[in-house]
Amino acid sequence: MSETPDSAVRMHTRDYIRSHRAAFLDDLSEWLRIPSVSAQPEHDADVRRSADWLVAKLRETGFPVAEIWDTPGAPAVFAEWPSDDPGAPVVLVYGHHDVQPAAREDGWRSDPFEPVVRDGRLYARGAADDKGQVFFHTLGVRAHLAATGRDNPAVHLKLLVEGEEESGSPHFRALVERQAARLAADAVIVSDTGMWSADTPTVCTGMRGLAECEVELYGPDQDIHSGSFGGAVPNPATVAARLVAALHDEDERVTVPGFYDGVAPLTDAERTLIAELPFDEEAWLRTAKSHGTLGEAGYSTLERVWARPTAEVNGMGGGYQGPGGKTIIPSSARLKLSFRLVGGQDPDRIERAVGDWIDARIPAGVRHKTTFAAATRPCLTPLDHPALRSVVRAMGRAFDQKIRFTREGGSGPAADLQDVLGAPVLFLGISVPSDGWHAPDEKVEIDLLMKGVETTAYLWSDLAAALR
Amino acid sequence: MSETPDSAVRMHTRDYIRSHRAAFLDDLSEWLRIPSVSAQPEHDADVRRSADWLVAKLRETGFPVAEIWDTPGAPAVFAEWPSDDPGAPVVLVYGHHDVQPAAREDGWRSDPFEPVVRDGRLYARGAADDKGQVFFHTLGVRAHLAATGRDNPAVHLKLLVEGEEESGSPHFRALVERQAARLAADAVIVSDTGMWSADTPTVCTGMRGLAECEVELYGPDQDIHSGSFGGAVPNPATVAARLVAALHDEDERVTVPGFYDGVAPLTDAERTLIAELPFDEEAWLRTAKSHGTLGEAGYSTLERVWARPTAEVNGMGGGYQGPGGKTIIPSSARLKLSFRLVGGQDPDRIERAVGDWIDARIPAGVRHKTTFAAATRPCLTPLDHPALRSVVRAMGRAFDQKIRFTREGGSGPAADLQDVLGAPVLFLGISVPSDGWHAPDEKVEIDLLMKGVETTAYLWSDLAAALR
Repeated sequence: MSETPDSAVRMHTRDYIRSHRAAFLDDLSEWLRIPSVSAQPEHDADVRRSADWLVAKLRETGFPVAEIWDTPGAPAVFAEWPSDDPGAPVVLVYGHHDVQPAAREDGWRSDPFEPVVRDGRLYARGAADDKGQVFFHTLGVRAHLAATGRDNPAVHLKLLVEGEEESGSPHFRALVERQAARLAADAVIVSDTGMWSADTPTVCTGMRGLAECEVELYGPDQDIHSGSFGGAVPNPATVAARLVAALHDEDERVTVPGFYDGVAPLTDAERTLIAELPFDEEAWLRTAKSHGTLGEAGYSTLERVWARPTAEVNGMGGGYQGPGGKTIIPSSARLKLSFRLVGGQDPDRIERAVGDWIDARIPAGVRHKTTFAAATRPCLTPLDHPALRSVVRAMGRAFDQKIRFTREGGSGPAADLQDVLGAPVLFLGISVPSDGWHAPDEKVEIDLLMKGVETTAYLWSDLAAALR
Repeated sequence: MSETPDSAVRMHTRDYIRSHRAAFLDDLSEWLRIPSVSAQPEHDADVRRSADWLVAKLRETGFPVAEIWDTPGAPAVFAEWPSDDPGAPVVLVYGHHDVQPAAREDGWRSDPFEPVVRDGRLYARGAADDKGQVFFHTLGVRAHLAATGRDNPAVHLKLLVEGEEESGSPHFRALVERQAARLAADAVIVSDTGMWSADTPTVCTGMRGLAECEVELYGPDQDIHSGSFGGAVPNPATVAARLVAALHDEDERVTVPGFYDGVAPLTDAERTLIAELPFDEEAWLRTAKSHGTLGEAGYSTLERVWARPTAEVNGMGGGYQGPGGKTIIPSSARLKLSFRLVGGQDPDRIERAVGDWIDARIPAGVRHKTTFAAATRPCLTPLDHPALRSVVRAMGRAFDQKIRFTREGGSGPAADLQDVLGAPVLFLGISVPSDGWHAPDEKVEIDLLMKGVETTAYLWSDLAAALR
């Protein structure tokens, strides 16, 4: 096959994919009908059914190993298809089979768990996030075999499909640590992100990390009269507000001492890659449903969300929140704070720094408690890694276009794979911003889904050569 | 009677009160059984029944005029008992006949609307706030007549008993304005406050005013992902917190420009009167159920709550407040702010200053709306007014003790009487801090209630002479 001209390989591959497209969509729709909502206990059995369905489908695809991996929460699926080439690199694909909650009355045009195709788009909860993007790997590996004439992949292919990603992956790291030997890989391909747009295919090269905490503040033992006592005792809502206000300086830089320690400055090359994207700030603001930009001085909007750490208040509350007024000093207030982290920031160090900073700012007469949730580390693909070049080449062949680079401002469990397995993480996603992740009318563009299939049809051969 | 020695007058008065005490308490208990809760529409008929009951009782007491004054809300009661002395000053007594909500299950030892006497205390909702303190005027005026041998009071006595005080007196000012001619008085006696303690009888000489607003802040059109957009768009919860934090400087002084304009400095005499009180900060903190003091630099705790203006956040909310975390930038946030005002501060000017200050602090991309509720003006009794000296003398005779001075940190409709009628407002209350206003097991000390009766028995003659 190595002497076949590339145009012939691509034609053959595309024919193969086209002829299997209908069956692939039927299978995917069957999976999408299973409401595997990990956040809702009433769907626990559905999440398991989803895992069982996937195991059966992976075996049918040809994976000699496909099994359930139980966790204290929802089950994951692991599959493995060794290469008969003893020098083949090991590649681990990551995705998840659980989905966000969805109900018709949230504003869906059709039942979120009854997939329908309209205008070349497949609408269903999980169509893009993440069942569609997991599932393109099944047809992808078959297309790879068809195109290469192989009986097994050119790489030793492993698949880990988590069942709790939409619930914050509470047992994922422990699972990866326990199964580190079986998960060992030379590269990790995460298929749970997106592209810039249908017109501008991109590879994501990093996600931010995340540290989160709740701060509870307690003043008077009960709400007290603001006339009788106001002006003479500390108000915990005021203390909470002062914490939030003090988080940033006038340049919108985070003031917590040590927060930026270890953060590598953006290189000129990185800034250039970001600046090359056809960024339309007005359009971005519409997507953000926001009416203005505000962020750290000296950085562009994309740099702020992709490459700079942040502090945000996700929720705050204290005192009377009903209609009208109530002249009280509230007895308590609460904050939910989160910190997006970038390369070089260690979540443990950040949590200590934030905790100390809060402790130092609480006046006498107010008690407080800061509770951190499990953190997620930032995850970056080295821009010069040969596996990244393989992904870019494979995408370039599938899309017939120059592939550009993005990052994700969000956070995901990919970093645990990078950490525990010591392997570079690459992102291969074909979802576009309009796909409506976590929103009503989630969909996937079927043509792009097929480009995902096609990319993996080329990727395994390329990676096998690049990582040899 | 003018030649009778004071000790004989007092003995006679006390005999009279003692002999009518049981009937007085029976009558008051009958009134307290009517659950005149103005805040609860299901008690509208009870509020009207309470007004009707009072009208009948005032006629029985001897008031030739006693009538219902309807408002768009709950009815008030007006009564009038002219003096046959053509030069007699006109005195208007203010109180209210509505009560706070109360339910046995809130923690009452007995039914809040079934008065019981335990250990010399009468327990019932409204016993102190304010039915008991209104009602002592009925026996008081009879004792005054008995002591002086008069057929009608030495002052032209008017009584205005509101029915919506516990609901914020929404129609009170309009009522006073409409009836200003009939309410015209040389002095107003407000019986709806308290004393320092049973051991330290005091006269209140002022209440703070109140301006209140709600600030709504809108950022993104819906909650948006803090990973995808965090760090690049304004967060309305952060804006809300920054407003609250910016309200005070490091000395806990309010930073709104013009806020202190017109505020008269506390005089040495006023500070001395406050410092003379047996103030125990530890005990005060227990009453405040607070664990520390914090307030404007340069002032004592009592000065802070009685004589200095404040800014407080009574409630705030925005974003996710449920269990765990949610990585969003909230679409909106809300603040409830209130400002206690002192003499010299004009609520209209304060509202403009606060509104402008807020407007100037909202970043681009955040919309906001500030809504002010009806304000209450501060109310101060001139310390050198002859009527105040009369009240102090009458109380001194009833209590056989030196009478000291307090203020109230809270706010009430008394200021409307001062404003509209142009008369000085004096406070005559015998309630003590342990009476549990607005709380379970509200009570009044029966001996102090009788001191209230006795005070008014002396007061009308004294005022008639002082204001002639």
